[in-house]
Amino acid sequence: MTLSINKIKYIKSLRLKKFRQKYNNFIVEGDKMARELLAHTPQRVVALYALESWLAGANGVSALSPEKIFSITAAELKKISNLNTPNQVLVVADIPEAAQGPEPLEKALSLYLDGIQDPGNMGTILRIADWFGISRVFSSPDCVDPFNPKVVQATMGAFLRVSCIETTIDRLYQEYPGIPIYGAVMDGENVFHTSLKGANGIIVIGNEGSGISPEAERLLSHRISIPPAAHSGAESLNAAVATGILCAVFRNRG
Amino acid sequence: MTLSINKIKYIKSLRLKKFRQKYNNFIVEGDKMARELLAHTPQRVVALYALESWLAGANGVSALSPEKIFSITAAELKKISNLNTPNQVLVVADIPEAAQGPEPLEKALSLYLDGIQDPGNMGTILRIADWFGISRVFSSPDCVDPFNPKVVQATMGAFLRVSCIETTIDRLYQEYPGIPIYGAVMDGENVFHTSLKGANGIIVIGNEGSGISPEAERLLSHRISIPPAAHSGAESLNAAVATGILCAVFRNRG
Repeated sequence: MTLSINKIKYIKSLRLKKFRQKYNNFIVEGDKMARELLAHTPQRVVALYALESWLAGANGVSALSPEKIFSITAAELKKISNLNTPNQVLVVADIPEAAQGPEPLEKALSLYLDGIQDPGNMGTILRIADWFGISRVFSSPDCVDPFNPKVVQATMGAFLRVSCIETTIDRLYQEYPGIPIYGAVMDGENVFHTSLKGANGIIVIGNEGSGISPEAERLLSHRISIPPAAHSGAESLNAAVATGILCAVFRNRG
Repeated sequence: MTLSINKIKYIKSLRLKKFRQKYNNFIVEGDKMARELLAHTPQRVVALYALESWLAGANGVSALSPEKIFSITAAELKKISNLNTPNQVLVVADIPEAAQGPEPLEKALSLYLDGIQDPGNMGTILRIADWFGISRVFSSPDCVDPFNPKVVQATMGAFLRVSCIETTIDRLYQEYPGIPIYGAVMDGENVFHTSLKGANGIIVIGNEGSGISPEAERLLSHRISIPPAAHSGAESLNAAVATGILCAVFRNRG
């Protein structure tokens, strides 16, 4: 078939948050992520556009209603893809309801992203949460949209397993009074020396340039830090790297 | 003054490794990194191109020979810059000799990058090394060039303090017989439970897609791991995130 101009327009419109929210749809691209999506949540697939060669080899496609499957050419894929090098398949999928995870929040470890701006960092943080079995990631309203195509690609599939929920730290604080709220700040206690008491609660991850906002900082119950070497000239760690270190320590120290 | 076509050509040629090696020059851009370069190693500056407004406010410029300083317009800066949003100043600098760091290798912690391809990852890893006071980062010949402009920008200035030395793991193994060589592999021992005995040696960081190469894996003296959660669906951590976790653990566990 040939992709209609209206379809191309629609798919391209999903690059913008405005249209993703209007239609509740987002884009997943590439062989690996499309296969994972088909295996985990085929019901979320709205439409699947793929090269004939990919359709011939992919498991899971046969479970989709044929009206959802479109065989397209490489030139057509290039028109709708967000990747520099389009990878065989592009899926339009429904944005899931933000699931609340298997455990009550008080008994789990969660993240609160406080103004994460970079799509690569956001995707990498979701991937870290996935690795360490953190099922809920809260994000402040000024974060980059987790269904931004660049974020989705950087998650390496984590968006299928980790719920991303937009909220504010004030709301979390009010809804879960007494929940431990951890945040890395310059004068915090070395996280390697902190007693983590079962390691539940919320870890706040600050913005790439300005760190944790004053609104979130005043709600911290535990001020922690990842100490630099004594003579380090570096001013900060990358936000995703700091997230990885904190999650690893929380998951591995009782 | 007006930038000559030959100068523009020369500066732009430094985007390619071939020309960086030929002339032993590389590019540093932006207010913050230019100031740091002037403060730390003004002798490395070959030429500094900046807006008049920046030159008026910058300390350290007066220490440079006037022939090295060029006041240019925003339009000229745009022509030579590698940034999407040029930031006031661009410096052509000498690539330093790979310094061997203050301590003997056997008494220090170092990294060996085994085929890191992504400039953002390479820069972030150098920034992590800087944070944790690791002064030597070895890189395999198939790594992205550490003086690639995207790497330099991602280091946030770490390239001024961390030596990046191209070598092979075989050469390191032969030159420093018996040095501990750590690497994260799927069946390794949880790094949080590993005895780190003073934490000296070389940590091998694998390629983003394929991990540690067979050549490096067979030389590992310590097979370690960053364990995922029991039911994690994630296949891997980002290479820079894994580096951050390993460095944090090595620096904080005796």
